[in-house]
Amino acid sequence: MSGLTRSACEARDAADPLARFRDRFDLPAGLVYLDGNSLGAAPRATAARLEAVVRREWGGDLIRSWVANGWIDLPVRVGDKIARLVGAAPGEVIVADSTSVNLFKLLAAAVAMRPGRKTVLTEDGNFPTDVYVAQGLLGLLGGRVVLRRADAARLVDAIDDDTAVVMLTHVDYRSGRVHDLAAVTAAAHAKGALILWDLSHSTGAVPVALGAAGADLAVGCGYKYLNGGPGAPAFLYVARRHQDAARQPLSGWMGHARPFDFEDDYRPHAGIIRQLCGTPSVLAIAALEEGVDILLEADMAALRAKSVALTSLFIDLVDQECAGLGFAVASPREAARRGSQVALTHAHGYAIVQALIGRGVIGDFRTPDILRFGFAPLYVRHVDVWDAVATLREIMVAEAWNRPEFHVRAAVT
Amino acid sequence: MSGLTRSACEARDAADPLARFRDRFDLPAGLVYLDGNSLGAAPRATAARLEAVVRREWGGDLIRSWVANGWIDLPVRVGDKIARLVGAAPGEVIVADSTSVNLFKLLAAAVAMRPGRKTVLTEDGNFPTDVYVAQGLLGLLGGRVVLRRADAARLVDAIDDDTAVVMLTHVDYRSGRVHDLAAVTAAAHAKGALILWDLSHSTGAVPVALGAAGADLAVGCGYKYLNGGPGAPAFLYVARRHQDAARQPLSGWMGHARPFDFEDDYRPHAGIIRQLCGTPSVLAIAALEEGVDILLEADMAALRAKSVALTSLFIDLVDQECAGLGFAVASPREAARRGSQVALTHAHGYAIVQALIGRGVIGDFRTPDILRFGFAPLYVRHVDVWDAVATLREIMVAEAWNRPEFHVRAAVT
Repeated sequence: MSGLTRSACEARDAADPLARFRDRFDLPAGLVYLDGNSLGAAPRATAARLEAVVRREWGGDLIRSWVANGWIDLPVRVGDKIARLVGAAPGEVIVADSTSVNLFKLLAAAVAMRPGRKTVLTEDGNFPTDVYVAQGLLGLLGGRVVLRRADAARLVDAIDDDTAVVMLTHVDYRSGRVHDLAAVTAAAHAKGALILWDLSHSTGAVPVALGAAGADLAVGCGYKYLNGGPGAPAFLYVARRHQDAARQPLSGWMGHARPFDFEDDYRPHAGIIRQLCGTPSVLAIAALEEGVDILLEADMAALRAKSVALTSLFIDLVDQECAGLGFAVASPREAARRGSQVALTHAHGYAIVQALIGRGVIGDFRTPDILRFGFAPLYVRHVDVWDAVATLREIMVAEAWNRPEFHVRAAVT
Repeated sequence: MSGLTRSACEARDAADPLARFRDRFDLPAGLVYLDGNSLGAAPRATAARLEAVVRREWGGDLIRSWVANGWIDLPVRVGDKIARLVGAAPGEVIVADSTSVNLFKLLAAAVAMRPGRKTVLTEDGNFPTDVYVAQGLLGLLGGRVVLRRADAARLVDAIDDDTAVVMLTHVDYRSGRVHDLAAVTAAAHAKGALILWDLSHSTGAVPVALGAAGADLAVGCGYKYLNGGPGAPAFLYVARRHQDAARQPLSGWMGHARPFDFEDDYRPHAGIIRQLCGTPSVLAIAALEEGVDILLEADMAALRAKSVALTSLFIDLVDQECAGLGFAVASPREAARRGSQVALTHAHGYAIVQALIGRGVIGDFRTPDILRFGFAPLYVRHVDVWDAVATLREIMVAEAWNRPEFHVRAAVT
């Protein structure tokens, strides 16, 4: 790989069919932002959209906006847009609550759809909040159903006739490894189990084809590659064929068949709307819509191609520039098995990430020793990848990472 | 009561110590807005705050904002501010999710804190979503605990040794009747039950003294009298003495003791923070903070005095101007038993509310025959009350409500 240069990276940017999208985002000059997998960048349009919602809709039309400005339809409208990003049909996705809350809903619904089966299966190292939420739900069920974890390599073999639900994250939050969504879905179905996918680390950067795979249920995050803003509302997917059977226990009024009739008893709405609970934040969904709208303008195949190009370039440059400096690539080297992020390991990973941030290269650290870099294809350039690796090398060679200030553990990393 | 005039109302506005607050809100000229109990008005400061959060914090500082701009502390910081409005101590209130989701959490925690007791007690006509959420939770528990409803008048007598939790709304969403929070709390405690209050229709307009009453648990809404915006995040309260025992099942990572250590198993955070679930919307909480900050500038006794003055004036004017037109006052006439809203009943209630809205007087209709008017003391004037009743009389005398267009039922009323 010797011979990769910064000007070669500039040439790739000049030829990038997605290059024009970078200007749709507010990105500080001089910053190399490789953490869009944790918090996506701010679309330039979002502030103006929020001003219009606050001043014209809320301020001007007040309560009438629920109908006059379509607020009541926002969860379905933005859900239908996200459906296009995950290979689902209109009416199969809705925006609601947080990823964790949505996971609770769908896991509860799924367990109830497989009565008599006593296990929820997940993999070792799944995103912790998914496991925590499963523990909370199964605790409520009083031990009727238990959580099993299997090694990712043996996961498919661990599915059996007692498995009610297989609950997995499509792209691993640390390594970036991609599950074969169709194959694992088929394996779950072969044993009569349902599958529940967490798409938080794939939606908007990695192609997802829920419908083609025959997937049952899914949840995903609004604030990573969808660029919906910090803590943006999440989404959930229920395949059409399951919608009448999927009853979730967070049965708030917005999921009622007739919320404004104020009936005495809960009666779930038809279709996906029963998956709502309380009143959703209009401001937060409006901001999310701005992020989603940009993605819908881009071609998903082009996004994936650029994502692969960026992550491959990063690995190649680490090999070329940082050989012998103690790093290992913890992500799959085979592009087809890799999401839009790359994990390196290093014994001094935490301090190195702090030193990078100090020099304007934003990645993040994940315990115990992982340096994690995300490459959001809408706004990361090839030259950013070059600059990130050049900075990494600089820090290592000068031992700049080895200063005391970079070894203090912050409360939040 | 004859003799009340519009100019007398103007004089009361001129003497109103809270009059200056109206200008802090964006209210359309000529509109009489009596629905702040459903959606509070938009503070003028909110749009600028959101622009700063989007452009400077999110756009400029990106992921670093969780620490650098205090995003991670927002739920506690704004919670502590709301604590001052409900008579709670710092660290007893946190902003999170929706009212419905929070009710689910606290009801689940409360039931688990009273093992062996088999009923949750609520009243007939409680706000439907509260009942729906209880039904969802108790369904998950598989019949171990059941929901009982009692008539409000016999509620205290219905609490018994089998009652795990008494779950009530402080101010009734239709009639505006106020429960005696301290007395009902004491009655629950006398039988060993916990109390869970829904403060959605009181916080910010009716004094609430959770600490003085010894209340156990509470939830409340951010988008009514707190003026946090449509679907604003909600809040919840757990008395300090219960915080270590209150384990809620929506055990997402933000409530974990060490969320960024990504441990394999859930371990709840100390104190109120365990009540969080997923990542909260920073944009939505920032907007809520703007609304709460205005309320904190106002004196709660003055707010209550004005609220009583407005609702009393409305009832007096309906008596004076609308006698013989078929209306009855469905709210308590005794001010001490009334929240910040007044309900009238009329056989043609729906059409009359539509006609009022058509003439710029915004109230709302609640089945079967209730015309509901809210009087947010921060921005409603005495002259608005006069104009509302004058319009009501005008519509009735001219039979303007009796036109076909006012009899069409909208999907959302």
